[in-house]
Amino acid sequence: MKRKVTLKQIAKELDVSISTVSKSLRNSPEIGEETRLKVQAFAKFYNYKPNNIALSLKNRKTKTIGIIIPEIVHHFFSTVINGIEQVANENGYSVIICLSDDSFDKEVLNMEILANGSIDGFIMSLSKETQFKGDFHHITEVIDQGMPVVMFDRVANEILCDKVIIDDKLAAYEAVQSLIDKGRKKIALVTTVDYVSVGKLRTDGYIKALLDNDIPFNENLIIKIENVDTCEITIGRLLEDKAIDAVFAVNELFAVTIIKTANKIGLNVPEDLAVIAFTDGTISKYSTPTITTVSQNGIKMGNRAAKMLIERLEAEQDDEEEENYKTEVIETHLIERESTN
Amino acid sequence: MKRKVTLKQIAKELDVSISTVSKSLRNSPEIGEETRLKVQAFAKFYNYKPNNIALSLKNRKTKTIGIIIPEIVHHFFSTVINGIEQVANENGYSVIICLSDDSFDKEVLNMEILANGSIDGFIMSLSKETQFKGDFHHITEVIDQGMPVVMFDRVANEILCDKVIIDDKLAAYEAVQSLIDKGRKKIALVTTVDYVSVGKLRTDGYIKALLDNDIPFNENLIIKIENVDTCEITIGRLLEDKAIDAVFAVNELFAVTIIKTANKIGLNVPEDLAVIAFTDGTISKYSTPTITTVSQNGIKMGNRAAKMLIERLEAEQDDEEEENYKTEVIETHLIERESTN
Repeated sequence: MKRKVTLKQIAKELDVSISTVSKSLRNSPEIGEETRLKVQAFAKFYNYKPNNIALSLKNRKTKTIGIIIPEIVHHFFSTVINGIEQVANENGYSVIICLSDDSFDKEVLNMEILANGSIDGFIMSLSKETQFKGDFHHITEVIDQGMPVVMFDRVANEILCDKVIIDDKLAAYEAVQSLIDKGRKKIALVTTVDYVSVGKLRTDGYIKALLDNDIPFNENLIIKIENVDTCEITIGRLLEDKAIDAVFAVNELFAVTIIKTANKIGLNVPEDLAVIAFTDGTISKYSTPTITTVSQNGIKMGNRAAKMLIERLEAEQDDEEEENYKTEVIETHLIERESTN
Repeated sequence: MKRKVTLKQIAKELDVSISTVSKSLRNSPEIGEETRLKVQAFAKFYNYKPNNIALSLKNRKTKTIGIIIPEIVHHFFSTVINGIEQVANENGYSVIICLSDDSFDKEVLNMEILANGSIDGFIMSLSKETQFKGDFHHITEVIDQGMPVVMFDRVANEILCDKVIIDDKLAAYEAVQSLIDKGRKKIALVTTVDYVSVGKLRTDGYIKALLDNDIPFNENLIIKIENVDTCEITIGRLLEDKAIDAVFAVNELFAVTIIKTANKIGLNVPEDLAVIAFTDGTISKYSTPTITTVSQNGIKMGNRAAKMLIERLEAEQDDEEEENYKTEVIETHLIERESTN
């Protein structure tokens, strides 16, 4: 018996990208005919099966859910997984996790590995690279073949499936409004430089809160940070210039770094600088002072995602009307702690 | 075609434990004949295949590694996974993760799911319940059938396979010695109440360091803590009695809670109380003061585990002498920060 090849091996052998192999095997018009035929011939020779979803769907239920997330050392994604596990286990399902490491290629490979008979359906959050490329063929194809997918947090409008999100714009709005309510006027938004969809929504919420309160929007107070080190330098300068009296940071690492920077130059949190962080993780709970956060409710998000997937898996398969995809919005809430008192 | 049943469904249907089903299917003498035959008949009727490891090993390589860890919201396990992914990806392997939630039954089910053709080998750390029960049949059986297993951190002597561990006793010894070197004499060990093997080794190292330095060992200074709340109460009392001048805590959550407790009653860290934590996570790095830790080198542990597994997978299969199982010991080191200065 010939040894089974993987997408990755075909790509390597023919010196093309994984995405090209994947699209060629699906006869995508995006790929030139010559390449397409070459890939197909190679795959056929090695008896490569693009996938056997349809077969596995008919013949058996694995009672297993596949999860694909961008990273694992990340409190939010870990809590979502716990939330998924809770509901999955209650309903007799097991869970298998793969990491995309924010890489498009790894996401495509992960889906290939899991969709080949190991699982009944996917719960996933897009890698940054996939969002940037806007290439979702690996996901839409799985859905087209009848395997349900539920997306959470980092979703894409182009993909028709069930989704669970939080209202990032509203969450940012409420956080900034709470700073304004405490008398702050020079509020900075500290965000990452990358292109994750939620970043833009949070910026929109920040701007809207300012304008609704007749506070002029100052572009210089939207601070895009590469990493924790540059955070310290940039914020240090703003603090010394007394240019800000409050900060809304998109993650708790930035928030705790900002607090330490303020302390170093003799400023007190919250007296001289109020701080709110997005994402309620352990750092916020245990830093000194403790940090006010926007809770993203990862557990609840995981619970809902699992519930939506299992309901779809257990619905009558021959019900043709079942494609009423829903997008559920999980409410966030502000957890007030010492950094804004 | 009859729907495929899982171990769990058989257990539920016959009202016996998953372990009983699993052992009955392997003809274990531990299970009474009546139960054994009942389980086997049921499994046969539903066409249950205990596993097809041998078959899948012969016919193909999935180029996928299965990881089973006890929990995911845990910095150490997350970093080990990153370490495994690094080496796996460099060698063209993908990784699939399952969580045991520290449950024996879930660990057995996870192995069943993954061993049925999805992966080439396992990297795993035992659940607390498995360690407590001392029942390793699900692991030894997989090994006996020729699927390699590498264990890390929470391992068991009873299982013959490759292992990667840290020297918990030496690590604890060095941490306590460093406190003694700084003139501390009333050193408490703050540990959990559970039965994880590494807990005992750390206690041994703590006691040895005291005795080697002619400091009498006081049993009352080994403090077993249920959770963070009881940590605060117990430590508060000791601090008010001036019974301790240093603490070696087995995790960073205890350490940061102890620092906050000390601050509340007007004591300073490190002047009045020096603190060292096991596990170098983000809390230690960002708390005030920052916390001196024993780094467990999760990345390196993951790197080594993946290397050992891949070497075994790629060794000649017909080499009969290959069962020279190794146990690699990863060195730890002390990361000195403000809490012991």
